[in-house]
Amino acid sequence: MILGSIKGEGSAIRRKAIERMNGHRGGVVWFTGLSGSGKTTLSQHVEETLFKRGFKCVVLDGDELRARLNRDLGFSEEDREENLRRAAEVAAMFLNVGFVVLVPMISPAREARDKVRHRFDPKDFAEVYVKCSIEMCERRDPKGLYQKARKGELRYFTGVDSLYEAPILPELTVDTEDTSIENCTQQLVEFIIRKFDIKSEREEA
Amino acid sequence: MILGSIKGEGSAIRRKAIERMNGHRGGVVWFTGLSGSGKTTLSQHVEETLFKRGFKCVVLDGDELRARLNRDLGFSEEDREENLRRAAEVAAMFLNVGFVVLVPMISPAREARDKVRHRFDPKDFAEVYVKCSIEMCERRDPKGLYQKARKGELRYFTGVDSLYEAPILPELTVDTEDTSIENCTQQLVEFIIRKFDIKSEREEA
Repeated sequence: MILGSIKGEGSAIRRKAIERMNGHRGGVVWFTGLSGSGKTTLSQHVEETLFKRGFKCVVLDGDELRARLNRDLGFSEEDREENLRRAAEVAAMFLNVGFVVLVPMISPAREARDKVRHRFDPKDFAEVYVKCSIEMCERRDPKGLYQKARKGELRYFTGVDSLYEAPILPELTVDTEDTSIENCTQQLVEFIIRKFDIKSEREEA
Repeated sequence: MILGSIKGEGSAIRRKAIERMNGHRGGVVWFTGLSGSGKTTLSQHVEETLFKRGFKCVVLDGDELRARLNRDLGFSEEDREENLRRAAEVAAMFLNVGFVVLVPMISPAREARDKVRHRFDPKDFAEVYVKCSIEMCERRDPKGLYQKARKGELRYFTGVDSLYEAPILPELTVDTEDTSIENCTQQLVEFIIRKFDIKSEREEA
């Protein structure tokens, strides 16, 4: 097979070629935080900003994954972990073609998140903690889910009857309770450019 | 939520913007055929050629999907269909960011392939039949799988103890038994450019 080389080692060479063309490296940015903390909104703002700067960027939204690819999964601990595992595998596929992949998912369990982290090379991965108190998230309640969970209409809801374990050493923490979305977006974009842009030094000079 | 528009209708607008930038439309090209017919080899050759022509292109290889994303699935009829469903969902994600997605998968069942087809807009999808007799595939047997299946060491092997249903009206048929890989690649590349290149669309108008 002549082109067997595209797999394995060859795909790493292809990835480098794509990254040179794009002007930035690919990477996975995993957003963890409570429901209503602003993960999806933030990742969409970041995607919008990076797109305008010419970055190849994609959002793998937790809710959309659950509605499509992972629609066979529930919210048991096992299913939540499988949900994360598949999201990480899809992220890896986009990484292979040079994308900055933004993954907003509650991902409440520290051990499950660590498994995701270890799926990637450290230089390709960053965990972002989208910090916001449960009180504030519940006050926002953009999808009415906290209300449902409090009424017992939703089970295994993170922060209500299911545990959220905050990251201990995330690469970045953004605080959406005390900081505006615009400011958090700015922090994230600067962080991503610092971590993944090949030309950032040249542009800044 | 300010950027809710990126979802749904908004993502179609984003896709168009990306496609204009890329100079070609995204699309899904589904390769079906027996094991050993040359689906993976062909899709890698096509990817290589399209990459050199500046196309955004990715191969979602059936074997790799089974080794990673779909490693929880077996070869029962139900699992095979779930295998295809997930591949189609991942293909749709790449389509959303303007890629030509090549999917080499045996996908033996006509009904299951039709479900995949109906997941997409007709202008975004093409089925390619990689035609090769079972005798020739078995003679090639690049992974030694036919031998194993004949010995009974592999079950549900397509063409041996599991049915392959050839497409009735595929968008393209390439014959790898009587035609060289180079020639088949050329046919495929021309077909893809005719179907997805924005410039060729304009020329046809």
